[in-house]
Amino acid sequence: MSQKPSIPKGTRDFTPAEVAKRNYIFDVIKKRFEIFGFQPIETPSFENSETLMGKYGDEGDRLIFKILNSGDFLGKVDESSYASKDASVLTSKISEKALRYDLTVPFARYVVMHQSEIDFPFKRYQMQPVWRADRPQKGRFREFYQCDADVVGADSLLQEVEFIQLYDAVFADLGLEGVNIKLNNRKVLAGIAEVIGAQGLLIDFTVALDKLDKIGADGVKREMATKGISADSIAKVEPLFSLSGSNSEQLAILKNMLSDSEEGLKGVEELAFIMETIGSLGFLSAQLSIDVTLARGLNYYTGAIIEVAAPKKVDMGSIGGGGRYDDLTGIFGLKDVSGVGISFGLDRIYLVLEELGLFPDTVDQNLQVLCLNFGPKEALAALKLTTLLRRAGLKADLYPTDAKIQKQFKYANNRNVPFVILIGEKELAENSFVAKNMESGEQETYNLKNPEKFVGRFQKD
Amino acid sequence: MSQKPSIPKGTRDFTPAEVAKRNYIFDVIKKRFEIFGFQPIETPSFENSETLMGKYGDEGDRLIFKILNSGDFLGKVDESSYASKDASVLTSKISEKALRYDLTVPFARYVVMHQSEIDFPFKRYQMQPVWRADRPQKGRFREFYQCDADVVGADSLLQEVEFIQLYDAVFADLGLEGVNIKLNNRKVLAGIAEVIGAQGLLIDFTVALDKLDKIGADGVKREMATKGISADSIAKVEPLFSLSGSNSEQLAILKNMLSDSEEGLKGVEELAFIMETIGSLGFLSAQLSIDVTLARGLNYYTGAIIEVAAPKKVDMGSIGGGGRYDDLTGIFGLKDVSGVGISFGLDRIYLVLEELGLFPDTVDQNLQVLCLNFGPKEALAALKLTTLLRRAGLKADLYPTDAKIQKQFKYANNRNVPFVILIGEKELAENSFVAKNMESGEQETYNLKNPEKFVGRFQKD
Repeated sequence: MSQKPSIPKGTRDFTPAEVAKRNYIFDVIKKRFEIFGFQPIETPSFENSETLMGKYGDEGDRLIFKILNSGDFLGKVDESSYASKDASVLTSKISEKALRYDLTVPFARYVVMHQSEIDFPFKRYQMQPVWRADRPQKGRFREFYQCDADVVGADSLLQEVEFIQLYDAVFADLGLEGVNIKLNNRKVLAGIAEVIGAQGLLIDFTVALDKLDKIGADGVKREMATKGISADSIAKVEPLFSLSGSNSEQLAILKNMLSDSEEGLKGVEELAFIMETIGSLGFLSAQLSIDVTLARGLNYYTGAIIEVAAPKKVDMGSIGGGGRYDDLTGIFGLKDVSGVGISFGLDRIYLVLEELGLFPDTVDQNLQVLCLNFGPKEALAALKLTTLLRRAGLKADLYPTDAKIQKQFKYANNRNVPFVILIGEKELAENSFVAKNMESGEQETYNLKNPEKFVGRFQKD
Repeated sequence: MSQKPSIPKGTRDFTPAEVAKRNYIFDVIKKRFEIFGFQPIETPSFENSETLMGKYGDEGDRLIFKILNSGDFLGKVDESSYASKDASVLTSKISEKALRYDLTVPFARYVVMHQSEIDFPFKRYQMQPVWRADRPQKGRFREFYQCDADVVGADSLLQEVEFIQLYDAVFADLGLEGVNIKLNNRKVLAGIAEVIGAQGLLIDFTVALDKLDKIGADGVKREMATKGISADSIAKVEPLFSLSGSNSEQLAILKNMLSDSEEGLKGVEELAFIMETIGSLGFLSAQLSIDVTLARGLNYYTGAIIEVAAPKKVDMGSIGGGGRYDDLTGIFGLKDVSGVGISFGLDRIYLVLEELGLFPDTVDQNLQVLCLNFGPKEALAALKLTTLLRRAGLKADLYPTDAKIQKQFKYANNRNVPFVILIGEKELAENSFVAKNMESGEQETYNLKNPEKFVGRFQKD
């Protein structure tokens, strides 16, 4: 009995063309990470459950994939736990490992475990899949890659500057013009909350503010009121919803508004330093703007908050983000290690490049030469030639059987091969081969003993 | 409360130096795969359990990591199953997904699901991690990468020739001389079993024969006897244990021995064709030998069986293997698709290269230039220079804080940086920078406005 195969919902197979395009993005990001001095690490796909549980909130705990213990996993379950028939009780008894939910917590765990061998400041990058038992929907998957770069062990604002430059450089490399790097600072948000007398409600305040794009000013005001922020305070916040003018004008307004908050002024100062430094260094293709409504879902940022918006002409939203956090490794016992990090949203970047036609034409041209197969003798000569072409570094192949030539040509077409080589009886007798340009149809004859001339056609100008 | 973090047994963190070395091997293999015309695919880390279960034998089923269903996983368990408190009953009720155990079964599943969009013959490669709940021990992990290349949909022996060339090319690229590519054929083994009248015991016969290296001729003979192979038959097999001479002499002996077995002769013929063709194409660095004791654990090979032994001077055993299988996709309903494939043993290749000192010296040189930090003003000039160097493609970094210069030099040393750049007060006033060669100690001064001259030192000759 054969089964009709399928894959779990929320997961994906990637075809050769898709892998080629994904790798193109990975390679660009990786190259820039390394040029910026970041070093790669890799961590296991699953961690001990206690490493992950409790780090992402209740919702996160629920979305973590747990791995069933091997063997007789019920053997260690006590009678009363089993009798409860309660999944939440049983989980920790029958499962000790869980799939990675993000790259940040494993990174913190890595830093703590390897602290004696790390030279701080430690600049690491990591590009690995993560898994979440989220409800699958368009653009949301249960397995997806994260591409993160972080620095830990240095609190200089030059790090923030560098990450913004890194975003600019990567998107310039990808040919993606017009991305908007939005910048905010948790201290500014805290300062605003302080000035309006809503310190205790900072989280509620920022969560509501973060939704400005989605639910509009009125929606945000309603949500703030629901959370117990007074009408008076909300009125004071009102101007933030439509802060405009140049970045320096906005900074001036914020500075004025936050004159009574030490923390708020510190935040404005940090924003100003980053903007000025970037200004003096210049951008390749991105733009940088202050966005005080930017809070992001994560609550662990303590300083800079960064988000990258796709160019306006595509409807995609955020394609990257990050910020500064002050005590990431504290959960594992290593205190006072400041960090900053950013992340690239691979799947969304892929969709943006696809929509704008920005993948290079040759990105999935995975074969440069196909030798056709005219029979055993001819195939042997073709295999010898293929061997030489491969040793010269060309992506070359020989059709494995002497199928009908029409079928072989169809295969060549489907694989998008620029050159097909023909060695038939006549060519074999003459010690020659014919190279056919599949686009122009033009044919040229070469000496089998001297394929260098043909190889020369592939040298980059 | 902070936890002392750890990782699950059998899993590994990879440090930057380790990732660099692993990626060096991956990149060499990947490049050769592509030059040989293979295309990459990727499949999900977890599959539906029914895709994997029953494909690797009972032992395999046991070693597959199962993923606990999300949410209230006990809700769907009926009372009587639950009352049994039997792990083997409960598993399929509370777990529907499982982690990939190898790349072969997911590949077969992929081919069947994507058959309408694939151009056969389909040459695919895949380099992804797999997971096995094996008892961890030296060199055996619960998470490890497999690097596989397979062709499906063509039964030409030229494929086998090509895979042997591929092994040769990869190991030549890695600078690993003296690997021994061992070749056998299932049909030869079947022929021998037939000639000695032990057809029904082919599996037992080959499993025993496969252990010749480990338990010696006497051990193999004892095991064969245990399995019910007659003393008479074992005596007939005896010469195989010490088959020697050149490959063609061995082929002649086998041909003679198998003259009464059609299948056996077919196997000898296939071996001969592969040896001859390889002979006419030439090798880069490996050697090829016939090894009739080669059976490998897997029972699904139907033709060629290939195994690569590390050079004799290292004690490592097999660093790769593969063979031909005739009905891989049959389990998922697609009949008569012949395939051949090989695999590279990444972890063992890593150990061999390490032991023989074959990693390039620069493999983990991940930073080319470090600018030291002498204070805010100087750092800004250094960041401008760093920006220019990075745009020129150099791996360059700026130390983020003006820590003691001794500490900064120590960091440069630890990161193995060839050049350190100094921009102090004096250099800043003179618009210059000093580049110090960390190996020779030699220092040279350049104009800050014209770093091209410095960049030129990194151009490849």
